[in-house]
Amino acid sequence: MDKKLLYEGKAKKVYDIGNNRVLMEFKDSLTAFNGQKKGSFMGKGELNARITNRIFSLLEGAGVPTALEEFVEPNSLEMKALKMYPVEVVLRNIIAGSMAKRLGLKQGTELKIPIIEYYFKSDELGDPWINESHIYALGYVSSTEELSRMKSLTLRINEILKKFFRDRGMILVDFKLEFGKYDGEILLGDEFTPDTCRLWDASSGDVLDKDRFRRDMGKVEWGYEEVWNRIKE
Amino acid sequence: MDKKLLYEGKAKKVYDIGNNRVLMEFKDSLTAFNGQKKGSFMGKGELNARITNRIFSLLEGAGVPTALEEFVEPNSLEMKALKMYPVEVVLRNIIAGSMAKRLGLKQGTELKIPIIEYYFKSDELGDPWINESHIYALGYVSSTEELSRMKSLTLRINEILKKFFRDRGMILVDFKLEFGKYDGEILLGDEFTPDTCRLWDASSGDVLDKDRFRRDMGKVEWGYEEVWNRIKE
Repeated sequence: MDKKLLYEGKAKKVYDIGNNRVLMEFKDSLTAFNGQKKGSFMGKGELNARITNRIFSLLEGAGVPTALEEFVEPNSLEMKALKMYPVEVVLRNIIAGSMAKRLGLKQGTELKIPIIEYYFKSDELGDPWINESHIYALGYVSSTEELSRMKSLTLRINEILKKFFRDRGMILVDFKLEFGKYDGEILLGDEFTPDTCRLWDASSGDVLDKDRFRRDMGKVEWGYEEVWNRIKE
Repeated sequence: MDKKLLYEGKAKKVYDIGNNRVLMEFKDSLTAFNGQKKGSFMGKGELNARITNRIFSLLEGAGVPTALEEFVEPNSLEMKALKMYPVEVVLRNIIAGSMAKRLGLKQGTELKIPIIEYYFKSDELGDPWINESHIYALGYVSSTEELSRMKSLTLRINEILKKFFRDRGMILVDFKLEFGKYDGEILLGDEFTPDTCRLWDASSGDVLDKDRFRRDMGKVEWGYEEVWNRIKE
């Protein structure tokens, strides 16, 4: 395959492979706190590629349009080349992480209505928080309909995945999504992995996501493997 | 007047005076950066009481319901005793202050659509940012209609005050509002002063608000007096 590196991020490399397609190669590295904490484990890239492939395929099957084309051995995904929105969409079902501390709330409290937050994608600025009015006024989307669509897709994805993980003994606490445009349509891009969500074991409460790394809980690799083992077909 | 101190804030004392009324006494002190920077000037309390009285009366006249009852010499306002929402509503017409730095934007850029931001009122937590979904999900309002009403009142207040200040040679850059409930109705409470807004001279660009204090620009007193002199009847 003829490929040209477009972008290297903290956890992925993205290559242009022509024909409006990119190859997303998942790295073994782990970072947290805007890159200040670094780590890695062997096989993490492969696990995240496989997990994203599984989740995006599931979502496609449930009618959510995604950029996924196909899994490429051992740790890559071929994706449609989206024009990404510079916005991260975060949905929270349960209060955890930075939000608990920031708002003086109890970690683990279940929300009756999910909370949706938005962040402006900028490593340099540390992904600052924004809200819908920044997104409109600063032109991060080209119409209010685009943001409504992203929001309704996010809520739909939450319904699908909450059930999917619940059926496999896991609680979907929160997650981050990124969307982009392709041929006039808004598609889910980027990834869905333990790097970008929080997943707890439904009976023990064990943390199965990147918080194991952020919070020095040990057995980071085990968390990612556990997620993969429970969701693989 | 028989009065009981209910609350002492950074710039005001609030007294219960019975009959569902409070007395807001404006202090001469000035604080910034969540109370880390402190100062004062004589007569500031009186100026802010007079400015709020003028602005709230103007808004009442234009159909915006406020808690204002009457000005009480020399530095106080008698107000209806609202049940305040724990939310600060900020509207921005022009990019300035923390927002410029936070989002990597140019200070002074005019926005085509105003930006509305929300903060959770908590000195302890440093007034953290929230958005509409936090306000609903965490129960800071009791219905979505209450927030819609606050938002539409804020936009209406902006239209009235932008014109009012423009007619007096000033640009209304941004401002903070607080609302509360009284007898089932949502009313504007708190204050509208150079402590809680940004105002620039329309020709010279001179700063006429608390940024003179925040940014050590000198002549803080002059800014507040200038605002009052231009708006008094």
